[in-house]
Amino acid sequence: MTLKFGVIGTGAIGSDHIRRITNTLSGGKIVAVTDYNKEAAKRVVEDYNLDAVIYPDDKELIADDNVDAVLVTSWGPAHEPSVLAAIEAGKYVFCEKPLATTAEGCMRIVQAEMKHGKRLVQVGFMRRYDYGYVQLKEAIDNHYIGDPLMIRCAHRNPTVAENYSTDMAVSDTLVHEIDVLHWLINDDYKSVQAIFPRKTKYALNHLQDPQIYIFETVSGIIINAEVFVNCRYGYDIRCEVIGEEGVVSLPEVSSIIMRKDARLSTNILMDWKQRFIDAYDKELQDFIDSIQKNGEPKGPTSWDGYIAAVTADACLKAQKTGEKEIIQLVKKPDFYKKVALI
Amino acid sequence: MTLKFGVIGTGAIGSDHIRRITNTLSGGKIVAVTDYNKEAAKRVVEDYNLDAVIYPDDKELIADDNVDAVLVTSWGPAHEPSVLAAIEAGKYVFCEKPLATTAEGCMRIVQAEMKHGKRLVQVGFMRRYDYGYVQLKEAIDNHYIGDPLMIRCAHRNPTVAENYSTDMAVSDTLVHEIDVLHWLINDDYKSVQAIFPRKTKYALNHLQDPQIYIFETVSGIIINAEVFVNCRYGYDIRCEVIGEEGVVSLPEVSSIIMRKDARLSTNILMDWKQRFIDAYDKELQDFIDSIQKNGEPKGPTSWDGYIAAVTADACLKAQKTGEKEIIQLVKKPDFYKKVALI
Amino acid sequence: MTLKFGVIGTGAIGSDHIRRITNTLSGGKIVAVTDYNKEAAKRVVEDYNLDAVIYPDDKELIADDNVDAVLVTSWGPAHEPSVLAAIEAGKYVFCEKPLATTAEGCMRIVQAEMKHGKRLVQVGFMRRYDYGYVQLKEAIDNHYIGDPLMIRCAHRNPTVAENYSTDMAVSDTLVHEIDVLHWLINDDYKSVQAIFPRKTKYALNHLQDPQIYIFETVSGIIINAEVFVNCRYGYDIRCEVIGEEGVVSLPEVSSIIMRKDARLSTNILMDWKQRFIDAYDKELQDFIDSIQKNGEPKGPTSWDGYIAAVTADACLKAQKTGEKEIIQLVKKPDFYKKVALI
Amino acid sequence: MTLKFGVIGTGAIGSDHIRRITNTLSGGKIVAVTDYNKEAAKRVVEDYNLDAVIYPDDKELIADDNVDAVLVTSWGPAHEPSVLAAIEAGKYVFCEKPLATTAEGCMRIVQAEMKHGKRLVQVGFMRRYDYGYVQLKEAIDNHYIGDPLMIRCAHRNPTVAENYSTDMAVSDTLVHEIDVLHWLINDDYKSVQAIFPRKTKYALNHLQDPQIYIFETVSGIIINAEVFVNCRYGYDIRCEVIGEEGVVSLPEVSSIIMRKDARLSTNILMDWKQRFIDAYDKELQDFIDSIQKNGEPKGPTSWDGYIAAVTADACLKAQKTGEKEIIQLVKKPDFYKKVALI
Repeated sequence: MTLKFGVIGTGAIGSDHIRRITNTLSGGKIVAVTDYNKEAAKRVVEDYNLDAVIYPDDKELIADDNVDAVLVTSWGPAHEPSVLAAIEAGKYVFCEKPLATTAEGCMRIVQAEMKHGKRLVQVGFMRRYDYGYVQLKEAIDNHYIGDPLMIRCAHRNPTVAENYSTDMAVSDTLVHEIDVLHWLINDDYKSVQAIFPRKTKYALNHLQDPQIYIFETVSGIIINAEVFVNCRYGYDIRCEVIGEEGVVSLPEVSSIIMRKDARLSTNILMDWKQRFIDAYDKELQDFIDSIQKNGEPKGPTSWDGYIAAVTADACLKAQKTGEKEIIQLVKKPDFYKKVALI
Repeated sequence: MTLKFGVIGTGAIGSDHIRRITNTLSGGKIVAVTDYNKEAAKRVVEDYNLDAVIYPDDKELIADDNVDAVLVTSWGPAHEPSVLAAIEAGKYVFCEKPLATTAEGCMRIVQAEMKHGKRLVQVGFMRRYDYGYVQLKEAIDNHYIGDPLMIRCAHRNPTVAENYSTDMAVSDTLVHEIDVLHWLINDDYKSVQAIFPRKTKYALNHLQDPQIYIFETVSGIIINAEVFVNCRYGYDIRCEVIGEEGVVSLPEVSSIIMRKDARLSTNILMDWKQRFIDAYDKELQDFIDSIQKNGEPKGPTSWDGYIAAVTADACLKAQKTGEKEIIQLVKKPDFYKKVALI
Repeated sequence: MTLKFGVIGTGAIGSDHIRRITNTLSGGKIVAVTDYNKEAAKRVVEDYNLDAVIYPDDKELIADDNVDAVLVTSWGPAHEPSVLAAIEAGKYVFCEKPLATTAEGCMRIVQAEMKHGKRLVQVGFMRRYDYGYVQLKEAIDNHYIGDPLMIRCAHRNPTVAENYSTDMAVSDTLVHEIDVLHWLINDDYKSVQAIFPRKTKYALNHLQDPQIYIFETVSGIIINAEVFVNCRYGYDIRCEVIGEEGVVSLPEVSSIIMRKDARLSTNILMDWKQRFIDAYDKELQDFIDSIQKNGEPKGPTSWDGYIAAVTADACLKAQKTGEKEIIQLVKKPDFYKKVALI
Repeated sequence: MTLKFGVIGTGAIGSDHIRRITNTLSGGKIVAVTDYNKEAAKRVVEDYNLDAVIYPDDKELIADDNVDAVLVTSWGPAHEPSVLAAIEAGKYVFCEKPLATTAEGCMRIVQAEMKHGKRLVQVGFMRRYDYGYVQLKEAIDNHYIGDPLMIRCAHRNPTVAENYSTDMAVSDTLVHEIDVLHWLINDDYKSVQAIFPRKTKYALNHLQDPQIYIFETVSGIIINAEVFVNCRYGYDIRCEVIGEEGVVSLPEVSSIIMRKDARLSTNILMDWKQRFIDAYDKELQDFIDSIQKNGEPKGPTSWDGYIAAVTADACLKAQKTGEKEIIQLVKKPDFYKKVALI
């Protein structure tokens, strides 16, 4: 049985997922696409030689009986209505971040999904599928380091586009740490403080870079998260979890060891797309496999999308106030407690 | 277009490739199987819910017009006749090592394939698809270390089955180094000498373990290859290439970094199946993709199978004589010179 | 010419320095000792077979014309009067931390030394002599990473004595980071904030452990300094400096690489005394050599002792208030600007 | 009590040891020097401001009652007569390699020392004092890896002087491995085979570089030792000991970790003098301390000098024959069995 996808948004990430489902993964197939830019939709159908209907908009695509699952890869503000419509139609949804641009929007999705009565939605937080994070999670869950007390992490890009703004450090960059860290330690955030170090001369005028976020969780774990998007030297994701009995940290990205010119060295990636390429494959394969096996996805939930939205809002507020800002979630519904996380 | 596979031999490696093609890779499908043990064939069809015909033997399976490509995963001595029959029928072949149990058998396949006039056969030397080796190859090909002068490598298993014998150190274990190293340095072997170090107490009486092989290539590169299959501590594949201007070596297998109990450590694999799991996926995906794109496979060739057979024979002789044994290949046919290696 | 030392305080650190000067270093000699505990003083003279006068108190020892330099290794509160008396007598002083227990006491020493007109005092901040920190300093001074923007460091002990208290995390532990970091980046601290993460179950009731300090420097560098003195796994000093163009960090302590039992590992020290053993040797040898060569020491100055005292006071206040506390130094005297730092 | 040294030969290594004893180590003093070049002897006395008599030759220096120990750092062929004369006079001797230029010469020294009845001589094989090798030795002696079965090592220099010849690869370079490896595994060499790989283009015409030596020990351990003195990239000493239960290897030289320009790197030394600088200090300090404490040195013995000479002879023969050459020692005298090795 093949899971038949309709894709809403055939831009960079959309067409990359289409390539993935068509050429790399097993058990999925693209049967419908739509994009605000009709030409783009047409081109992707040709490029990948798809046997897919091109729809004028998301509503018609969702209404197609042949579509089992909807891949939402349009621009952020368009996500919420597409996801809600898909839930309404009882279709599975794989939605790229953000689930919705506001906490309220995420909550509307959460409620629609609960009303439907079964999990339909998975949010595209791929880091949970990265083998390094998976190993960290296993070590923590197996009490290898005792209770976690502190986390130190960094999200570094060599450079960013001109339009990258100070708030995008939260919504586009830090959001990945926001999702993966609470999952890693099975805890919720309580507060966050933003600290702006001396600015690098390589950041444009409008951008504060680097930025540091200090989170406190409900259980008292302190997280120090650095975002540095003009670090020049590479794309580098670091994470170290310090527990009562030991410390675990992400490995470097695997690379041959070179001895030359008085240096012992390994390569650091410059391109972020290479860093989580396996994780992108695995999250979508898991979405397909879980639905085929269990009738529902088991990756990041709508509730995780809601957590990300509330937390990002607090971070953005903390950017402005310089004060410790409270991160206040509503009570977690039982519906999402019984959901099996990966 | 889907590449339709017939599988000859549904034992451990056969059923693993069936799982791979069915659940993980893209573009391939199992349509026929056969096994000496009819029950095993039946079971694998059920286990993977295959829509596949069960044939009584390899000949009937190969004759099925629905079969585009034959996967030869029977026991070694049965490979040659199956491969020859498949070539005769103009079918593609993915054959696990050995291509044939003798150099003469390999040569018969080489000649059959040349007579057919187009590449049909790929041999299952998966290491060329391992990301570490790929990076080594790139570094060498890009002259990063200048001309290679020496290689030091090791193939270590924690333990082996009781029936593992001294000659299997060559035919089952060293054969992977034999294939990947000549590809790595784009050179041919000239001679080999076997050296037996003091035997580990963990080896059974009938087994010499460890063993060392000193190869010399046509260009004078010296290769020191260790085989140690009761090394206890893990499955460990090491390879260091020493060139005129630098040295490159395989990275350790990626693993989180742990600080605990006065030790800074990472995990070493114990299970060889984990080590090259990505390479197994990639070699078969490449087989499928190359055939669909170019009408022929581009991985390890019948000629590579012949090289492996001749070299392994010299190693086995060297085990017995303790002398430097010559490795004498016939002249490489132009047919295999124009073949695009990966 | 031999530098003749009088030692005030023959406890653990005092007798260790006596051993060092007597058995390991070159150019120094112990000629006088005193200790509150007369028996201890006598024992150390016997143990190291010293040709040294035992004095009843620091004043008589300092007055001995045979004493060129005074080694102050008594308990903290006794440091200031001994140092002031030595300066008064025009003797060189090597004083273990703290230079004085209060910022005012340090300032009195600073003023006495300036009045004397020549540097006499070196404070025992040995980390500046550690080869790892020396290399970090060189990299920063040579603009290898561009301007520093952030520092992340950690000071971890496997365990501490029962009497170790929350404020000792600053005065005994963090004080080493306080000294070495401002030297590393050639900057002054502006403020500090203390954050108390969830407490480890291995800390006694009276002790907050771990603790995190966020410093901001005058130029805007943000320092995240962790103190964790019941980390169980080892004595571990970490320091990473993140600059505009790159990142440099301390290496692991050198240790053979072990492959055993499915682990690739190196040893982590459990005993802090081993970590900086070379640095202790080098700081005292440098004190001896500099005086013999240039007539004055060139290691950490009285002014550095003052900086440490003011900063530690702010950290202790920050422990109580939970607020960002200002670190306010008086204007740096020209006298200490011309002083050659190592 | 100070050990008073007379130095025979004040060239590069001689004056470096004079600096070491005078400025760095404790318990030794230079009281006499001699050199074939009178001006060199005079200059070193002035440079280090020594209170030392300048003698016209080794005999008069040895005869000086004020001289307790003789440091033999003249050129190789002059070592034997100086060492024999010193033993005759009952003086301690620290002799740089070679102890004598022939196995027969070494044996004459062994016999003279045995006749004297007490150990007097230490040979300057400093690697046994290197912390990496010390840790390897401890691991092996503590059965951490079970019985050793194989060793892989490499001795690489970035470049060598024009006059460096093919036989110097043995007598100047490999000789350090020859000494340290038999000590490491507490075994004797039985045979050696030399293999010449393809020559690097960076070696001058008269020099074969690299070279590989395959040793077999009495217990059957196989050692693969590479000498590569134009490796370009750095001075690199590698050693891996493979045992029945695990593997231990030398660490990289400690260096800060740098992230810059898409590379994660550490420095590799270019200058061999830096690599064993601590070991040079420790070997001489141990010589001084052992004599003062136990009345005899405990480092590498005359017997070790003899082993090195016999083994080097076999390696030189193996260079020429290309055959496996036997390494035949006379029976080890009880005198050297009771000697405590470090």
